[in-house]
Amino acid sequence: MNIGIYGYGNLGRGVEAAIAQNPDMQLVAVFTRRDPKTLKIETESATVVHTSDVLSWKDKIDVMILCGGSATDLPEMTPALAEHFHLVDSYDNHSSIPAHYSAVDAVARKSATTALISCGWDPGMFSLNRLYGSAILPEGNDYTFWGRGVSQGHSDAIRRISGVLDARQYTVPVEDAMNRVRSGENPVLSTRDKHLRECYVVAADGADQAEIRRQIVTMPGYFADYDTTVTFITMDEMRAQHRALPHGGSVIRTGKTGNGNNQVVEFKLTLDSNPEFTGSVLVAFARAVYRMARRGD
Amino acid sequence: MNIGIYGYGNLGRGVEAAIAQNPDMQLVAVFTRRDPKTLKIETESATVVHTSDVLSWKDKIDVMILCGGSATDLPEMTPALAEHFHLVDSYDNHSSIPAHYSAVDAVARKSATTALISCGWDPGMFSLNRLYGSAILPEGNDYTFWGRGVSQGHSDAIRRISGVLDARQYTVPVEDAMNRVRSGENPVLSTRDKHLRECYVVAADGADQAEIRRQIVTMPGYFADYDTTVTFITMDEMRAQHRALPHGGSVIRTGKTGNGNNQVVEFKLTLDSNPEFTGSVLVAFARAVYRMARRGD
Repeated sequence: MNIGIYGYGNLGRGVEAAIAQNPDMQLVAVFTRRDPKTLKIETESATVVHTSDVLSWKDKIDVMILCGGSATDLPEMTPALAEHFHLVDSYDNHSSIPAHYSAVDAVARKSATTALISCGWDPGMFSLNRLYGSAILPEGNDYTFWGRGVSQGHSDAIRRISGVLDARQYTVPVEDAMNRVRSGENPVLSTRDKHLRECYVVAADGADQAEIRRQIVTMPGYFADYDTTVTFITMDEMRAQHRALPHGGSVIRTGKTGNGNNQVVEFKLTLDSNPEFTGSVLVAFARAVYRMARRGD
Repeated sequence: MNIGIYGYGNLGRGVEAAIAQNPDMQLVAVFTRRDPKTLKIETESATVVHTSDVLSWKDKIDVMILCGGSATDLPEMTPALAEHFHLVDSYDNHSSIPAHYSAVDAVARKSATTALISCGWDPGMFSLNRLYGSAILPEGNDYTFWGRGVSQGHSDAIRRISGVLDARQYTVPVEDAMNRVRSGENPVLSTRDKHLRECYVVAADGADQAEIRRQIVTMPGYFADYDTTVTFITMDEMRAQHRALPHGGSVIRTGKTGNGNNQVVEFKLTLDSNPEFTGSVLVAFARAVYRMARRGD
């Protein structure tokens, strides 16, 4: 299988590393909006190509793996590329997946291409496990816990506060809440009951740390509904201790069968590198897309 | 969907309970080798039918769920019924699955029926998770831990010893071994490292308990390769404390991506009732078989 990577950030590099672990596929080209001459990739046999030239690779790529962001890139990229390529994307804005599906499906049907959207772990493997869980235990409850891991969206939100030079936010599941769920208790849990938010912040010299802390913990949509800790660190500490992008979490389905027997199904990920695992999932499903496309699905 | 249950032991009752939780299906008939008049079932609207009469139900049943045993029942039942019915079975003799597959596949192809074999949790959901795990993390290791739960096969083996009136065997995973696996250490584990076997035995009056214990712990294939405990109890204690059939376990895939990042995927079941959970899986996949059959798959 000849694979293309469209977009080369953390996720694109994760996909590249995963392709190297699968001998039935090879990376043939990386597409970038930057000047291709400035981009160094790991795969010697692959070519770096400007995105404006993508159509000339139409017959050389079996499956394109899209590694753009969900906020603005993928809503345009995926439908546009589905006209010409079988593809996989990792669109992760849960509430907008139906709209994204419709946009991509319309193009793929007309073009007879096979497109898989919202692949990865959440959405992706977590979604699959929610589906299996509710199909097997129809009388039950779903619980999802995320972390301990870095949330890029929350880290970015802190970085936009005036006086903040850098920030890293860890989403931390509350162990006691997880254990109550695992026991089959079926608790009703608030947002605050389920996760803590740990923030590590590098402030500019002379910045008002109390004010930065206040802005973080009261930020609506991101932190206001959580118990949040803010720790100020130096830029050296940030570089030394917070470079990795670990993540993970659990999807738990608890249900009752027969005369009230508790049944608990848990799917749990513990990931040293979120982008490398996500890339590995995208690559495994690119193989499925390749096969489905050959069958005409 | 109109469902039939073929065989009415613990698993058949678990399937019946699961059907009652799924409003898109109904149980229409239970087939038994016993005298149908002697069999009491829970579903008032369903009929109890002798197995010799099964062919007259051919047009009234969309999917047949086979609840016979793997040792002698299913190798004959499944190919025979696949000539006339779309079906699901829970054949669980792992090493003989390829032979069972061939036998059932040959009949189903000729008869244009859809048959799903070896459904349940292991084989079944555990197999699916092993497949996903190795597809996503090709450079890694698989680990399976079972329990804490009742192994019917091991309980039966103890009951065959002279002087034993009843027995219950619990398979117990070694917590320390599981934690080493979850840490990403990729340990090499012997059979003895992974599981303990706890046996509760009711001996006949005057039976030689030391000899029973010796026969259990040295039994090849069942106990000799494990650390095994044997506890003698009264028949009243057996009835009071060991009536339930809990089980569960974990499939863990550990792998490395990129420059040596550890990734751990775990699928874990904690089941109060093994037959009711297995029955719930069979019913969920009976729905899939129904849909696949309508598509002509």
